Amino acid sequence: MTKAEKVLVGGKWQPADATGTFRAVNPATGETIGPVYPVSSRNDVDAALAAGRAAANALLDVPPEKIGEFLDRYADRIDARSREIAEAAHLETALPLSPRLADVELPRTSNQLRQAAAAARERSWTEPTIDTSLNIRSRYAALGGPVAVFGPNNFPLAFNGVSGGDFAAAIVAGNPVIAKAHSSHPLTSQLLAEEAFAAVQEVQLPAATVQMIYRTDHTDGTYLVSHPLIGATGYTGSRRAALALKAAADAAGKPIYLEMSSINPVFILPGALKERSGEIAEEFQTSALMGTGQFCTNPGIVVLLEGKEAEQFIGDMRGRFEKANPTPLLGFGGLTGLGESVEALEAAGATLITGGSKAPGSGCRFQNTLLRTTGEAFIRDPEKLQTEAFGNSNLFVVAKDADELEKIADSFEGNLTGCIYTDTRGGDDVLYARVEPHLRWRVGRLLNDKMPTGVAVTPAMNHGGPYPATGHPGFTAVGIPASVRRFASLQCYDNVREPRLPAELRNRNPGGLWRRIDGAWTLDDVRVS
Amino acid sequence: MTKAEKVLVGGKWQPADATGTFRAVNPATGETIGPVYPVSSRNDVDAALAAGRAAANALLDVPPEKIGEFLDRYADRIDARSREIAEAAHLETALPLSPRLADVELPRTSNQLRQAAAAARERSWTEPTIDTSLNIRSRYAALGGPVAVFGPNNFPLAFNGVSGGDFAAAIVAGNPVIAKAHSSHPLTSQLLAEEAFAAVQEVQLPAATVQMIYRTDHTDGTYLVSHPLIGATGYTGSRRAALALKAAADAAGKPIYLEMSSINPVFILPGALKERSGEIAEEFQTSALMGTGQFCTNPGIVVLLEGKEAEQFIGDMRGRFEKANPTPLLGFGGLTGLGESVEALEAAGATLITGGSKAPGSGCRFQNTLLRTTGEAFIRDPEKLQTEAFGNSNLFVVAKDADELEKIADSFEGNLTGCIYTDTRGGDDVLYARVEPHLRWRVGRLLNDKMPTGVAVTPAMNHGGPYPATGHPGFTAVGIPASVRRFASLQCYDNVREPRLPAELRNRNPGGLWRRIDGAWTLDDVRVS
Repeated sequence: MTKAEKVLVGGKWQPADATGTFRAVNPATGETIGPVYPVSSRNDVDAALAAGRAAANALLDVPPEKIGEFLDRYADRIDARSREIAEAAHLETALPLSPRLADVELPRTSNQLRQAAAAARERSWTEPTIDTSLNIRSRYAALGGPVAVFGPNNFPLAFNGVSGGDFAAAIVAGNPVIAKAHSSHPLTSQLLAEEAFAAVQEVQLPAATVQMIYRTDHTDGTYLVSHPLIGATGYTGSRRAALALKAAADAAGKPIYLEMSSINPVFILPGALKERSGEIAEEFQTSALMGTGQFCTNPGIVVLLEGKEAEQFIGDMRGRFEKANPTPLLGFGGLTGLGESVEALEAAGATLITGGSKAPGSGCRFQNTLLRTTGEAFIRDPEKLQTEAFGNSNLFVVAKDADELEKIADSFEGNLTGCIYTDTRGGDDVLYARVEPHLRWRVGRLLNDKMPTGVAVTPAMNHGGPYPATGHPGFTAVGIPASVRRFASLQCYDNVREPRLPAELRNRNPGGLWRRIDGAWTLDDVRVS
Repeated sequence: MTKAEKVLVGGKWQPADATGTFRAVNPATGETIGPVYPVSSRNDVDAALAAGRAAANALLDVPPEKIGEFLDRYADRIDARSREIAEAAHLETALPLSPRLADVELPRTSNQLRQAAAAARERSWTEPTIDTSLNIRSRYAALGGPVAVFGPNNFPLAFNGVSGGDFAAAIVAGNPVIAKAHSSHPLTSQLLAEEAFAAVQEVQLPAATVQMIYRTDHTDGTYLVSHPLIGATGYTGSRRAALALKAAADAAGKPIYLEMSSINPVFILPGALKERSGEIAEEFQTSALMGTGQFCTNPGIVVLLEGKEAEQFIGDMRGRFEKANPTPLLGFGGLTGLGESVEALEAAGATLITGGSKAPGSGCRFQNTLLRTTGEAFIRDPEKLQTEAFGNSNLFVVAKDADELEKIADSFEGNLTGCIYTDTRGGDDVLYARVEPHLRWRVGRLLNDKMPTGVAVTPAMNHGGPYPATGHPGFTAVGIPASVRRFASLQCYDNVREPRLPAELRNRNPGGLWRRIDGAWTLDDVRVS
């Protein structure tokens, strides 16, 4: 077998026990690029699990300051190697080097790690709760097993299994990570993992705190997430793979958090169109075509009320989509998938406004695509017309009246986001009040007058939503402390002697941690009577 | 078909669409008692789901004060009818009328509802988080669908599907409840549901806020928890039924919270035995035999270090178990199950110290039972020797040395609780430090010098634990606000105009709700710059 790159397993870079090899493809050219990478066997998975469990135990004794130091050092190292990492990601994903990768996603990634470092030190994610009269105290804490993180193809840095939000959240909670690199960008993942491991060694964390394998076959993926030694799993990617992993993890009683699909409906109410159609068209174009539309929060469906303004808006968007050059998709699998989704939408009755086919040339490009359908058709077959078309394709749904608009809102499945644009003078308020209640509990994040792309890394963010957008409506993948709680267990101490308590639950609170004592949040010590 | 009692479906007491009937059995005598109850068909389930979803929508507009009023009025009504309810529960479960049912469980039930009423008004469970510079705000909120609650047989009041902790938590979060009464105590459930529904009508909540059916066949149970209209499910009971429901709910992407099995290991370290053996024996007897040992937190396994004190303790316990009269079990199914579990433990190598058989007479009684095994045997076959024997049967595991003690701690599966008894002078501290880290992440609640029965209803309580004690290590069934969060979705508002925000997220905070604004918990308003 061809000599392949090493995997990061068991606290060192070591030759994989490989069942095969693969290489990356540049989606802009179709060329095979970069080193040869291994497909790991179950032996590699077993080795990672055993080392991960040992690291999980060892991490229980590691002071939080040290976890913070690791995350900071890792962030610094990414920044120091930013050019090489961003260039690798550019070649492997065809996402623009600048500004997207070098100036937006890479700084976001290291900033995210620094936010995580601060959270690891500050520890408000542990949410200490103390009832003094009964001497019962609880907090969130590590899981006691490694967290498997599967990153997606569309954010090679900020959601990478070895550097992204799930990685950071799992580490903050004191869990080691077994990263499954996305096999569309192995070199990017390798460079990141090199820096992660160097930082692990520099601050002397347990060596298997970070592990990474490049690819396994599907049965070994389900084996990993359902293994007795695993703590939990974070997954971002396609619904089909997500559901296979979910079934395996669920059957084994292992927590799994999925971010798997979303079409992110945008309602543009008539007053808003009258007031600022051009401005909204500009916002929609940017949000829909940025990253070739390959965002979890891409505004896949736009709902309009029938009329002159709606037709003008659709005409304007058609012109804009036809004028813009289609940028490359992330890979040929995605290109095929997008074509199939557009066909499925047409088969369900949507009509093509523009695009709909592969763009000419050898690269991985699809024509910028718009489709439309009626509210009546959508209400009749909401499932098929909600087929996610991941990429530069969007669907208009045109309602004939307010009743239909409300029924459309009542027909969506769970989504990450939902947006409503209204005019600024109150003309759309009655319609807003009819649409909002239906949309509200179907989406994780409700927006006004703003497109859904752009997920701020901030405590109040919810990058989550009801199934099938994710696997559970109560968790978010972005926004500390809530994102950390996914990888934590609730630990209660009942009548435990004070010196035996973890620092967060002791009487004294020297670090100024927010704690809920007898129902009130405070920075004070526990008063001992 | 025999005329059966009505079910509470669709906002009224109405005849069931019954596929059969059943009656309760008095476990103390074996006699069939009370009215004839229906086994509901899928039509009843469908009717409850449709009405529940409509009620869920209607509840979104109900002010929290009114939900609090409902819970308070319901509590008052239970207290006003306490004698009748406790007597029904006594006949249907054979649990002692006094103090257990009338003086402990019933007041606990109404107090729990009053705590829930306060939480519904106070709303700290919504955990409002506001980031002012980005104008992103989030909170927990209702699910948008009804919550199915399956109560267990062992707490006919405090965990009843129509009056217990899961019921209260689901209602606090603004969800309607579809209760599945436990079919061992239908009259108790009927009386409670009558009061719940009267309170619903009195405060004019949506009529289907509370619904109840008595029994379905298993396939209709899995249909209910996996139905598109359901919001989530809370279940307390046997592991087998729990796993069947979990599989169905998981496959449909519906949250389900299970409390299903736990053997609650208790380590009594040698210094503690030397210091206060008699006192600990008294505590253990009370905890092990109260309610005929039918508690989720029954101390099923006691781990001791080999020696004279351990043998004396076991001898003392044998005398106590033989002297105590066995009290009735909850039903004949449980009697059979307990006998089978004891046989399974013996087959796995445990030896009988006392008991082991059905007690004489017509009632549903099993001899008070003790078994023992060695540490070596336990470590060799931890799965079989952790067979839950639900009732008045407990197992001693005797370790030959400290290494074995530590390995035993490292062999337990997920449990609700784990206890460690130590002496008061530090003589057991070295052993404690070896055992505790293994036990800590395997149990939801760690206790010192205290038996696990007795689950205080208080914010810091964790009545939860890693699988297979429950389905997820991050949630608790007891302790508001955390228990409420199980039945809530995370809802984020991004750039939403201030007057459109829910009360918890508006700038002004007239009710004095704790909110996390820009990372700090405060009772203040949002400062508008």
